[in-house]
Amino acid sequence: MNNILVLGAGRSSGALIDYLSKKSGEHSLQVTVADANEEQAKEKVKNKPNTKAIVFNIEGEDKAADIISKHDIVISMLPPAMHDKVAAHCLKLRKHLITASYISPAIKAMEDEVKSAGILFMGEMGLDPGIDHMSAMQLIHLLKEKGVEIISFKSSTGGLVAPESDDNPWHYKISWNPRNVVLAGQGAAQYLEDGKIKYIPYNRLFLQTTKIKLKSVGTFESYANRDSLSYRNIYGLENIPNLLRATLRYEGYCKSWNALVQLGLTDDTYKVHIDSSFTYHDWIASYLPSSTKPLERRVATFFDLKKSDKTIKDIKWLGLFDKKKIRLKEGTPAQITQDVIEGKWKMKSHDKDMVVMVHEFVYAMKKKRYRLESSLVVKGTDMAHTAMAKTVGLPLGMMAILLVTGKCELSGVHIPVMKEVYTPVLKELEEYGVIFDESVREIKK
Amino acid sequence: MNNILVLGAGRSSGALIDYLSKKSGEHSLQVTVADANEEQAKEKVKNKPNTKAIVFNIEGEDKAADIISKHDIVISMLPPAMHDKVAAHCLKLRKHLITASYISPAIKAMEDEVKSAGILFMGEMGLDPGIDHMSAMQLIHLLKEKGVEIISFKSSTGGLVAPESDDNPWHYKISWNPRNVVLAGQGAAQYLEDGKIKYIPYNRLFLQTTKIKLKSVGTFESYANRDSLSYRNIYGLENIPNLLRATLRYEGYCKSWNALVQLGLTDDTYKVHIDSSFTYHDWIASYLPSSTKPLERRVATFFDLKKSDKTIKDIKWLGLFDKKKIRLKEGTPAQITQDVIEGKWKMKSHDKDMVVMVHEFVYAMKKKRYRLESSLVVKGTDMAHTAMAKTVGLPLGMMAILLVTGKCELSGVHIPVMKEVYTPVLKELEEYGVIFDESVREIKK
Repeated sequence: MNNILVLGAGRSSGALIDYLSKKSGEHSLQVTVADANEEQAKEKVKNKPNTKAIVFNIEGEDKAADIISKHDIVISMLPPAMHDKVAAHCLKLRKHLITASYISPAIKAMEDEVKSAGILFMGEMGLDPGIDHMSAMQLIHLLKEKGVEIISFKSSTGGLVAPESDDNPWHYKISWNPRNVVLAGQGAAQYLEDGKIKYIPYNRLFLQTTKIKLKSVGTFESYANRDSLSYRNIYGLENIPNLLRATLRYEGYCKSWNALVQLGLTDDTYKVHIDSSFTYHDWIASYLPSSTKPLERRVATFFDLKKSDKTIKDIKWLGLFDKKKIRLKEGTPAQITQDVIEGKWKMKSHDKDMVVMVHEFVYAMKKKRYRLESSLVVKGTDMAHTAMAKTVGLPLGMMAILLVTGKCELSGVHIPVMKEVYTPVLKELEEYGVIFDESVREIKK
Repeated sequence: MNNILVLGAGRSSGALIDYLSKKSGEHSLQVTVADANEEQAKEKVKNKPNTKAIVFNIEGEDKAADIISKHDIVISMLPPAMHDKVAAHCLKLRKHLITASYISPAIKAMEDEVKSAGILFMGEMGLDPGIDHMSAMQLIHLLKEKGVEIISFKSSTGGLVAPESDDNPWHYKISWNPRNVVLAGQGAAQYLEDGKIKYIPYNRLFLQTTKIKLKSVGTFESYANRDSLSYRNIYGLENIPNLLRATLRYEGYCKSWNALVQLGLTDDTYKVHIDSSFTYHDWIASYLPSSTKPLERRVATFFDLKKSDKTIKDIKWLGLFDKKKIRLKEGTPAQITQDVIEGKWKMKSHDKDMVVMVHEFVYAMKKKRYRLESSLVVKGTDMAHTAMAKTVGLPLGMMAILLVTGKCELSGVHIPVMKEVYTPVLKELEEYGVIFDESVREIKK
């Protein structure tokens, strides 16, 4: 039970590999780090006791099966689309699998077989999804034990830049997958309000935000995630009238981002015609009727704003009014925008990222109403040691140790909503500075 | 060369079958009308000389091949998605194929084989696409022969209700595929303006309309079609600075339709949660934040309009504020909206539909600029004899006769942009009242 295979040696696997290596003596672990890029895997295990690096390619079926067969637990940090294949191998070879990704329909369908094989597939075991589930369930179980009526639950998470490294007008830098930043919110958001299902189409998502103040770090705004409804059952809140899961940004971001959405710059369905002299200026102009006026003014007029408005300045800051050749040779609007923000919102090596999570419950007890807020702020050290990698990687590693030590005997396909998982993991996370700050106050009518 | 197979006996095939039957004596035609629904096919051939009805299912490969093998020319009015299969049979069996649908990539890929088989696949041979290509090309060739410089070409078509049958505030009734009415414009429109490519995202499409007045029938507005750019090459207008293909509606429609789009009612990507008591009122409310105010006022406030505004009245007229149970048991927003408009915008049996097409050229000749407008208005007789069926069906039938009589010797995959096709077809269409009205005036600066 001591051979652990970590699939994927990308930016976010550092904290996980560190953790497993540190625990390797105590639990006699052997940790194999596998990646399509052998150099990257080697880099990740340098000076880490009881670890080794190997090449791994999920597409090479026999080789992949051979590697997996030599381990007891697989932790996959591969892109979510590859997890179905990893899971199929694990099921066949009877190996535990832990990921930070959402449970796919294909993996969900393996549920019975996984259970009868006596193995555990634990998904959504990172930050969001992951720590959000665990910390929410701990509070929900506590409130249920108290016998209170839960009226509302709103949960928001953001992967952001720490205030001390925030040096741009968007107050945003990229600490995770930039493609997801560009496509965020496409489709319609669904949530619960006053017992009714509510929908927010993409074209209004970044306008319908909620403000959240956190004393220590600043003011944020949240926009609704695509799916809040399925968490009614998952969290055991079948009859709750208000339920919302959302994403956090610093205040002001959403209004400016909405301008890019309204212009059409996040569309991923067609390729822009880019010729050899096509500039960012030309590109933005292609979304506006022809005019001889300066582009900046045309965009301001389009949004019924002054040229001095923050939104117009933010667009300008991105370089979208520049008469500079577009860097990409081909791409959708979303791909061009991604390339622009990857340049402008790049974390510098000494920058600190920051993870923020806020749970807000409203509940009734003895004819009084209370608001419970539980918030988490984790800052990274630098770009080699991000809060994102830490909060995604540590729960994955801790789950592996729960299996190695026999403290968790679950089998089947699960996400971490049960006490036997969240209690030890949340407790151990505190040792690493992942500590929720809780406050309760009565709501006066 | 005299056996003609008509695939599909739907609403729009009546005029085609009438035409072929009428021509059958002169050209010794035998016309087979084939449909999955035998009754419908029988109904369509009743009292029509030299026609017969049979059952046909494109999924039954051998049977379909057997039927096609017994004919010389196939005219397919099946849904566009089925045409690839029909085309594969026709290629194998060396049969001519005529359709009113866009040439699919799969059919385009058959080009060389079709040509060496010595057969003709003529696509886009209906109204739009079809008559629009033919009438545009006739004008373009005339202008090119004159040696003028074509500066701008805008072409708009609409399948509408005739003014004398227009009795609803939207001034629209459904004379073709209602699903296409609901999904119209999804994706981004692309066109040419002042030599630049312009994009209009869906969320702004119904706001960026152009007004078009036609003396005889009224004022219209047009919104851009998805693709105008590919017609630069097809029409031989490679260097034209302004090119736009668009769709016509009566004035006022687009503003009200845009309200449905902005609310989120045309989204086809998720299913609405419909429970047993879910009303249209509940549904519209699900797109708005909770409030105790009347829904009508909330929608008006949302759009920054007065309750008395036409847009709000139009939404009300559709029944969307009614506390009546939603008819569908399940469906996407687009499907619910389709069901609503199919009820409200239904043509009555005596209603007349109307097809309107407007071409507008701007050209320069001897330092002067001219505006050439060519417009077509065709009204139906009643719902059994619609302008839509006539303008789609007649060109298909006429193309078949061109093949039967040997007047067209084309082979390969084509659309009707060549003189040898458009000249006889446009001429014969005039006998059926499909007559363009042309006017030219100098543009004073």
